[in-house]
Amino acid sequence: MADKLQDTRRMCVHTQTTKPWSLAEAIEGYTRASVPGITVWRDHIAPYGAEEAGKMLRDSGLEVVSLCRGGFFPATSGQARLDARNDNRAIIDEAVAIGAPLVVLVCGASPEIELPVARQMILDGLADIEPHAKDAGVKLAIEPLHPMYADTRSAINTMDQANNMIMALGSNQVGIAVDVYHVWWDSFLKAEIGRAKGSIFAFHVCDWRTPTRNLLTDREIMGKGCIRIREIREWVEQAGFNGFIEVEIFSDDYWKQDQDKYLWRLKSAFLNHV
Amino acid sequence: MADKLQDTRRMCVHTQTTKPWSLAEAIEGYTRASVPGITVWRDHIAPYGAEEAGKMLRDSGLEVVSLCRGGFFPATSGQARLDARNDNRAIIDEAVAIGAPLVVLVCGASPEIELPVARQMILDGLADIEPHAKDAGVKLAIEPLHPMYADTRSAINTMDQANNMIMALGSNQVGIAVDVYHVWWDSFLKAEIGRAKGSIFAFHVCDWRTPTRNLLTDREIMGKGCIRIREIREWVEQAGFNGFIEVEIFSDDYWKQDQDKYLWRLKSAFLNHV
Repeated sequence: MADKLQDTRRMCVHTQTTKPWSLAEAIEGYTRASVPGITVWRDHIAPYGAEEAGKMLRDSGLEVVSLCRGGFFPATSGQARLDARNDNRAIIDEAVAIGAPLVVLVCGASPEIELPVARQMILDGLADIEPHAKDAGVKLAIEPLHPMYADTRSAINTMDQANNMIMALGSNQVGIAVDVYHVWWDSFLKAEIGRAKGSIFAFHVCDWRTPTRNLLTDREIMGKGCIRIREIREWVEQAGFNGFIEVEIFSDDYWKQDQDKYLWRLKSAFLNHV
Repeated sequence: MADKLQDTRRMCVHTQTTKPWSLAEAIEGYTRASVPGITVWRDHIAPYGAEEAGKMLRDSGLEVVSLCRGGFFPATSGQARLDARNDNRAIIDEAVAIGAPLVVLVCGASPEIELPVARQMILDGLADIEPHAKDAGVKLAIEPLHPMYADTRSAINTMDQANNMIMALGSNQVGIAVDVYHVWWDSFLKAEIGRAKGSIFAFHVCDWRTPTRNLLTDREIMGKGCIRIREIREWVEQAGFNGFIEVEIFSDDYWKQDQDKYLWRLKSAFLNHV
């Protein structure tokens, strides 16, 4: 492996990875462990409010990589779809307040809405909020989610669909968040990452646990699963991505552990497997 | 809906759907409920042996639709890969013994084997057992499995991959089993079903439960989830499929219920939602 991989200067941790920590504790913890980047889950901002959270983050010296998450555009009622767009505009404002240059989008889905219809609602929603993102100077990243989330979380389940979506939008403001957990299985992955050249705004890492005991909160530490993370990293970097690499692990098991020790373990896994 | 849909003459139930029942009980139960077709899981044959199971099935007058399941070709050791092929030849013989014209294949995967390598092992294994299937007069159906099973169950996760596989094999003996549970989310589904014209050997139905509480045994009864089953049925029939439609539901919840009542409920769901 090239030397450039052997450091954590581009390591970022998602606050939901260390869910038991408040934002203040996460800022302290990441600083203690010399993790330079932080991605903030909205739940971690809520207790402080965006202004106060923004001040804490600026004072910390940590690099704010992104705000998670906007999206959830599809809904059966027109009013709910308009509300979702307004929510997204507010989330963009929140990103400005905390100094996040990017909002990651979980685009949404509903068991009551056919996937092609949901995808159109996502496209329409994105087109509607894009000017607000542009004015705010905040980028938006569509995160394709694993097909096991196609019922309620996202109708965008492959890089192909995300690429089609950004192509249809035609805005530099909107790109893609590649999370290895969601896309590792896809036989078109390398080609579609290549197609996304210049539009990959975020890169998330974790690993796939065997067996996976529940669909939502059983992700694994990098290197402990079957995902070829370095190969995918190579592809996204060949496609021009050179930003922070975010560790995003939702795990009931790891949330129960000492979060300081866990963070050091993540750092070591990042050095050895990302 | 056309009248042709309003009957259960092409209804088949997979013995694993009524897992608590032995093969003898399943035969009695399906006969009582006037379900004409049966697909047999190998576990349900084991207590009797294939010869005895075959006699029971012939005597029942039920139509034996398929034997589940062969496959699992990838392995890290060469010997294990040869063993897997021999197992598959034995499974083909078992199909002959019970009068099943088709073996459904869960092709296999391993967290230790990269997906492209696993796919090559599947192709090589299939090419090796195909002559035995031909001699035995038994067809083989590749079942693409949902991407959430790409770590240990199948490296074939889309209709596109299954189509490529049968195209590479070029044998009339090998086709595809379309299970709505595995493929419903795929934006290329309609096109790939069309591409499989003449090669769809099996069609499985159930539904996607929201929320899905575990990856393996939380499937839903047709009509209670978000899968557009009739739309997919239309596509497979336009692609030439006119065989039995198999109800395959793995569900801890439903296995706990009275299996006779459950079977009547499935019949009603089949009439109304398939």
